[in-house]
Amino acid sequence: MYRGSMPRTKGDHEARRRDVSAAVWQVMATRGFAGLTLRAVAAELGATTGLLTHYFPTKQALVEYALDLLEQRTVSRPRRHTGEGLAAFRDALLDILPLTPEATDSNRIWVSSWDTALSDPALSTDHARKYAKGRDRLIERVAAAQELGELSPGNPARIAAGAQAFVLGLVVQALFDPAVFPPARQVELLDDYLAALTASH
Amino acid sequence: MYRGSMPRTKGDHEARRRDVSAAVWQVMATRGFAGLTLRAVAAELGATTGLLTHYFPTKQALVEYALDLLEQRTVSRPRRHTGEGLAAFRDALLDILPLTPEATDSNRIWVSSWDTALSDPALSTDHARKYAKGRDRLIERVAAAQELGELSPGNPARIAAGAQAFVLGLVVQALFDPAVFPPARQVELLDDYLAALTASH
Repeated sequence: MYRGSMPRTKGDHEARRRDVSAAVWQVMATRGFAGLTLRAVAAELGATTGLLTHYFPTKQALVEYALDLLEQRTVSRPRRHTGEGLAAFRDALLDILPLTPEATDSNRIWVSSWDTALSDPALSTDHARKYAKGRDRLIERVAAAQELGELSPGNPARIAAGAQAFVLGLVVQALFDPAVFPPARQVELLDDYLAALTASH
Repeated sequence: MYRGSMPRTKGDHEARRRDVSAAVWQVMATRGFAGLTLRAVAAELGATTGLLTHYFPTKQALVEYALDLLEQRTVSRPRRHTGEGLAAFRDALLDILPLTPEATDSNRIWVSSWDTALSDPALSTDHARKYAKGRDRLIERVAAAQELGELSPGNPARIAAGAQAFVLGLVVQALFDPAVFPPARQVELLDDYLAALTASH
């Protein structure tokens, strides 16, 4: 289907981009950034490596595309909205955890991206910026929970940084040991964390 | 110095192994597992790639060696001993954090190993086993702190899993954003975490 032919219409082009994105995502979810090659994406897509070079002239272009795709899918993922204040803070933390197959793939790709990102100052800065934005969103929810008297009046930035650390580490544990950290266990540990935060005020 | 020659005595051999280990470590600390190649290790060592194939006939052998080296250096690293009970629990958590340049290199290599390990079921199982052993050591310290009445009588395995999640995530934040998470900030956040744990009992 893809061999050698170029897209002829805007619709064709967009359909093919979606297929390429799905193939890049699938390769990353299975093999990580270390296994992300033009050859692997071509095999996933049932296309030639030659066709892929049309989209990604270099390995660097493929890595950048993959990182953009990861950010897009993270930003546009479905979010929980079960309430205000502490409930909204908990929702934001649950949204990060690998509680579904889709969230597991996405987290596996995030964790895999860390090796690539730490080796490249520009990518590393970009990751730092993304995590800082994530903390900013948590800070708003901490402040809202404090206003409702559901969280201690401590520094919201410190509470948000601590909570972000907690869920990032829980992601890593759950990816390596899904038998020990199934979704129910992750939620239980997060609730222990939140219970300690709320009990200490 | 290394070009083409084979070690002649046991002393030569051991000195060379130490040099090779130092070169593998340095490459991983700078470029991660993604940048760990025979060529990069040879360049770091000032040796030929040919000599390196004597030690590492395949890329897989080099990766396994690097993972063993990471475990050895982690196991043999200096440890804090400032007290018993809660102080010993805090020491064990501080020992994990990137508070020194050496601990930063080691953590950067651990985080980098996750991409490689998640793509390989045997390596992934091995990482899960290492983190489970780490939790077992934390459980002992939690139980000791509980006996001294310094921590709540909750399930020690849950408290240990939560604390391990917290420090793993703090490692990731500190590696990406050392300006926002310098050592003093990491210790402050850990102490907030411990304060919430102790206040909630």
